[in-house]
Amino acid sequence: MKISVIKIGGNVIDFPEKLDEFLGQFAKFPGHKILVHGGGIMASRFGESLGVMPEMVDGRRITDKDTLDVVTMVYAGLINKNIVAKLQARHVNGIGMSGADGNIIRSKKRPVKGIDYGYVGNIEEVDTDLIKHLLNGGLVPVLNAITHDRKGQLLNTNADSIASALATSLAKDHEVKLYFCFNKSGVLIDEKNESSIIPRINEDIYAELKQENVIHSGMIPKLDNAFAALHKGVHHVWIGKAENLLLSTKGKLSGTIIESHKYDLF
Amino acid sequence: MKISVIKIGGNVIDFPEKLDEFLGQFAKFPGHKILVHGGGIMASRFGESLGVMPEMVDGRRITDKDTLDVVTMVYAGLINKNIVAKLQARHVNGIGMSGADGNIIRSKKRPVKGIDYGYVGNIEEVDTDLIKHLLNGGLVPVLNAITHDRKGQLLNTNADSIASALATSLAKDHEVKLYFCFNKSGVLIDEKNESSIIPRINEDIYAELKQENVIHSGMIPKLDNAFAALHKGVHHVWIGKAENLLLSTKGKLSGTIIESHKYDLF
Repeated sequence: MKISVIKIGGNVIDFPEKLDEFLGQFAKFPGHKILVHGGGIMASRFGESLGVMPEMVDGRRITDKDTLDVVTMVYAGLINKNIVAKLQARHVNGIGMSGADGNIIRSKKRPVKGIDYGYVGNIEEVDTDLIKHLLNGGLVPVLNAITHDRKGQLLNTNADSIASALATSLAKDHEVKLYFCFNKSGVLIDEKNESSIIPRINEDIYAELKQENVIHSGMIPKLDNAFAALHKGVHHVWIGKAENLLLSTKGKLSGTIIESHKYDLF
Repeated sequence: MKISVIKIGGNVIDFPEKLDEFLGQFAKFPGHKILVHGGGIMASRFGESLGVMPEMVDGRRITDKDTLDVVTMVYAGLINKNIVAKLQARHVNGIGMSGADGNIIRSKKRPVKGIDYGYVGNIEEVDTDLIKHLLNGGLVPVLNAITHDRKGQLLNTNADSIASALATSLAKDHEVKLYFCFNKSGVLIDEKNESSIIPRINEDIYAELKQENVIHSGMIPKLDNAFAALHKGVHHVWIGKAENLLLSTKGKLSGTIIESHKYDLF
C-alpha cells in the first residue's frame, strides 16, 4: 500500500478560503491519504475569550489544565469536525481522530527539565493497525494534535511530530510519502524570493548548503526532522505551500523534495 | 452479533465522579457496545463564558452559528475525547465519533415551521457498516450529538434520537438492546418513590397505565420513543439510572424494561 501523510497548520486552518481551497486539492489527491492538522490562532482566540491567557516561558507555550481544555475543544472539536464535514461534502470519507481514539498515539507528559510545559505529550507509541484498517476500507483519517497517555490524561502534542511518527510507523510495511505544508514555497536559495526553490535535497546537498550558509536557521530543524523520517524508512518528504500540493503529484516544481537517494550534483 | 447501545446525558456527564463511576460500569458491560452521549450544562457554561447566550424560543434552545461552534467544541471535543481517554485507561478501546466521521449519520437541517431552530439536525440516514466493522475489530464507538448534512454543514442533534436511530439501523441484522440512562430509577408507580419501579412494560400494560394515569406526562414521549424502537426491531429498551446499568445485565431489578413481548398481567 502507498500512503501519503499530509500535514497542515495555522497558515491554512486560520483562513476559511485557504482551507476550502486546500481541501479541494486534498480531495483530488490520489491514493491512500491521511490528513494531520494543528491548531493555529483559533485556540488562542477562544482561550482569550474564555479568560485563558496563553502563558509563555522562554517563548514556549505552557499547556495548563484550562489551556488543554481549550485546545481539546478547538483542535478535536471545532477544527477536526468541520474539516471532516467539508471532506464529506466532497465525497471524501473522512474520519476524524485524536491519538486517544482507538489508542492510535500514546504519549507521555513531557518530563520537567527546568520548564514544566504542562499537559504536553512526547509521542511514545503509534498503533497503525486501525489506520491501515480504515485506509483499506476507503476511509481518510483526519488526525488532530491531541494524544493521550493511556492513563486517562489527554495531552497537547506537536502536529509535525504526529505526522512524522505516523509516517515512520506506517513506513515499516508501506511506501509512505510525507508532506509538510507551511508558509514558504519550499527550501529557498534566497529567502526573499519564493521562486528560488531548491527542488531536491539529499544529505550530501544538505551538508553543502549548510556549509555555504544557504539554508537559514529556521529551516534546519525542519530538514533535520525530514532526514530523521527518511532514516526511519519514509520514501520522501515534501515541504511547500498547501496551494501547490496537487502540483507536487504531477512531477512539477512545487516545493522541495527531501530524499535519501544519492546522486551527483552535476 | 449482539449489540448494546447505551445513552447517557447531562445527569452523568456534568458530574466528574458520576461519569467515572459510570465509565467503570460501562467498561465491565459485557459484549459489543456503543456509547452515545449528549452535552449537559457544560456547553451552556462555556457558551456563556464566550458571550454566546442560550437563545430560547417557546422553551426550546435555538442553535445559531456561535452556539453550533460551542456545542461542536464541547460535545465532539472536550466531552468526547475525555470519555475516550478515560475508557482507554480502563483498557476499553474507545473511538470517538460524530455523525460526520465516516458519514455515519446524515441529517437535515430542521425545516422552519414557525420557529427556526437554527443548526439543528433531523436524522435522515444511518450507515452502520463502519460501526459494525469497528465492533468486529473490538473497538467501542463513542458517539456525540453532532451530525452533518453531507453538504459541509455540521448540525446539533438530539442524543436520544441518535441512540434510537443507531439501534434501529443495527437491529436490521443484529440483536440490539437500547439503554437510556436518565435521572429516575425507571418508570415509577409513584413518582416520588424511586423504589416503586415498574420492572417490565409492554404495549398492553402501557395502555392500562396510561388509562389509570399512573404514567406522568414527562414519561410518555420517552415510552413512545421506546415502543417506536421496538417496532423497528430493537430487542428491548431499558430505562433507569446510570449507576444501575450493570445490575440490569444480571437480571436484577434495576430499571424498567420496555418490550414487545406479550404476556398476561396475572
